Amino acid sequence: MKRVAIAAAGITKFNKTEKPLDSLMLSSIRPIFENAKDLEQNDVDVVLTSTNANRNYLANIISELSGIKPKISHSVESLCNSGTNSLVSAYAYVSSGLADVALVVGGDKSDNPGLVLNWDMARGEYVHPIFWSSMFTSAHMRKYGTSLEDLAYVSVKNHKNALDNPYAYFEKSFSLEDVMASKNLTENVRLLDCSMPCDGAAAIVVCSEDRAKKITDTPIWISGIGQKTISASFTKNNDLSSMESTKNAVADAYRMSNKTVDDIDVVELHDAFSICEIIELEDMGFCQKGQGAKFVRDLYDTSDKMINPRGGLIGAGHPLGATGIAQVVEIYQQLTGNAEKRQVSDAKTGLVHNMSAGSTSSTVLVLES
Amino acid sequence: MKRVAIAAAGITKFNKTEKPLDSLMLSSIRPIFENAKDLEQNDVDVVLTSTNANRNYLANIISELSGIKPKISHSVESLCNSGTNSLVSAYAYVSSGLADVALVVGGDKSDNPGLVLNWDMARGEYVHPIFWSSMFTSAHMRKYGTSLEDLAYVSVKNHKNALDNPYAYFEKSFSLEDVMASKNLTENVRLLDCSMPCDGAAAIVVCSEDRAKKITDTPIWISGIGQKTISASFTKNNDLSSMESTKNAVADAYRMSNKTVDDIDVVELHDAFSICEIIELEDMGFCQKGQGAKFVRDLYDTSDKMINPRGGLIGAGHPLGATGIAQVVEIYQQLTGNAEKRQVSDAKTGLVHNMSAGSTSSTVLVLES
Repeated sequence: MKRVAIAAAGITKFNKTEKPLDSLMLSSIRPIFENAKDLEQNDVDVVLTSTNANRNYLANIISELSGIKPKISHSVESLCNSGTNSLVSAYAYVSSGLADVALVVGGDKSDNPGLVLNWDMARGEYVHPIFWSSMFTSAHMRKYGTSLEDLAYVSVKNHKNALDNPYAYFEKSFSLEDVMASKNLTENVRLLDCSMPCDGAAAIVVCSEDRAKKITDTPIWISGIGQKTISASFTKNNDLSSMESTKNAVADAYRMSNKTVDDIDVVELHDAFSICEIIELEDMGFCQKGQGAKFVRDLYDTSDKMINPRGGLIGAGHPLGATGIAQVVEIYQQLTGNAEKRQVSDAKTGLVHNMSAGSTSSTVLVLES
Repeated sequence: MKRVAIAAAGITKFNKTEKPLDSLMLSSIRPIFENAKDLEQNDVDVVLTSTNANRNYLANIISELSGIKPKISHSVESLCNSGTNSLVSAYAYVSSGLADVALVVGGDKSDNPGLVLNWDMARGEYVHPIFWSSMFTSAHMRKYGTSLEDLAYVSVKNHKNALDNPYAYFEKSFSLEDVMASKNLTENVRLLDCSMPCDGAAAIVVCSEDRAKKITDTPIWISGIGQKTISASFTKNNDLSSMESTKNAVADAYRMSNKTVDDIDVVELHDAFSICEIIELEDMGFCQKGQGAKFVRDLYDTSDKMINPRGGLIGAGHPLGATGIAQVVEIYQQLTGNAEKRQVSDAKTGLVHNMSAGSTSSTVLVLES
């Protein structure tokens, strides 16, 4: 297999605006062409858009507005992990030799239709993702004694990390008391345990080794890819204290990259809700099962930014189609030493975990400098 | 690059039904598992859905309903060439080694939102594809003297071919007089010059060489791929007597497959409207520029089924997300000798041409037995 690089990245501020999706996407693309050593619109073979919006022909529209006439252009949708699905397609095009340079752009508005899980009739009235997060929370509490305070630490830590991320939706920190006292949405999910839908876009360039060296002095390599879909409906999940698709995907990503959890310096993981970060840390091997809450408290106590340095989805916001790409942008910035106040020192190997719909599907990527 | 095969195919009758999209897609998948020598749900690494419907998480829903737990699953959208875009992604996954077996399923209902080109404000009130076809028709008439009768021959031929296609939307033939007398939608596009939106689904299995030989005794090889996007809006097209994206894509597909037009035995081309078949035959080198109409008349006079043996979009119907896959299914059946009454004798090399939105983007594939 040919070596495949990430050679450039761009991102918008995550917020709520009047800007249409197209404009957001273009704003994330602009810095890529402005900052690259050598990259012209004519060099781009592939334009993929990643979104949950009900739009047709969006990749072609973004191509035309960007002055690009690509070979391959289409939109990719898989709810919250649309972004990493489009990145994996870009990897495959470059790796197979069909393309040399792919521009991958994710974006969504805060009112996008991916926020409601309305295809699964077994959910009854419980169509909002809050309900699956509450069921995961209950299961983890029963099995491992996880407390409401444990959950609150995830939120406090990630909101604190987001303060150093100029693109984050939240621009203020919250105390443990703030989170504990925030509105109860279910008996164990509070408002500040949730990632917020918002507007945002993020873009990356995926390309061949030769091309990467023309675009930048610091390419990052995609060395591990794992993906798994267990189901679409929530009823197929058995043990709700764990995420089967994530365990499957991370095993494949470690195997392909020939890395273990001990090699990972910095992580972006999919904290759609507080409970997710705790379960995912366990399922990806960063600690023993049942020790995720303690792991988060230790990170908080030591101000360690290793996990979700940009603030995760909880601190940075969650524009669905952009999220997977934004996670990759963060790890790209970390591994190139450009993460400014968020920089994790000596970060050489990073991991991205991006999932959909109650972890019915997951993507894990290993990136290396 | 690894050799990549098509090893199985399925298709539904194209019609108008009460069936939901999911059911149509499942109906196209069922014969694949029923007929394969050796293929289980567990063998499938990738499920891609191709549709213009406003649906979220459809690939995961189809996976679950089919009993498949794939690595990669998402939906692909690029209007009328969504189908071939998803096939090219499947090719890239297999060729790169990320996957061994991909199931690609295209489908749409007759009321899907891809039928109206409402993103291009420059179109003014002319949002229906009929209007771009009328502009192509006017340009070709001016430059090459193409007549309304020439256009009618495309429709008569393709409706006649569709009589031998049990999956076609139309089940009756039309005389030259019928087409000439059918309702004028513009000054040069009549109702019977148009492909009809309808319900339908089609599915194929794309896989590695080793796997293909387990599934079938007659794999078909994807030897040439060409894709090009010129724009999203129609205003970027200059010479409307020709299709720039098609010329670009066919050149790449011939180059990659090391074939020329003289090697092609059977063709599925994107006759969304009568004028399309004439222009595409010229632009893909089957005849000189300006000779497309004569080429079609000769086919008709000699009952030669080489071009659009299943009746094309005009005879078989046009369920947008299914169309590109349905074209590939036809060429697969032709090259495996299973096209029954439609069989083109001694067909060894086939070509698929699938395009979107006034040929603003095109895909061309070369397939070989």
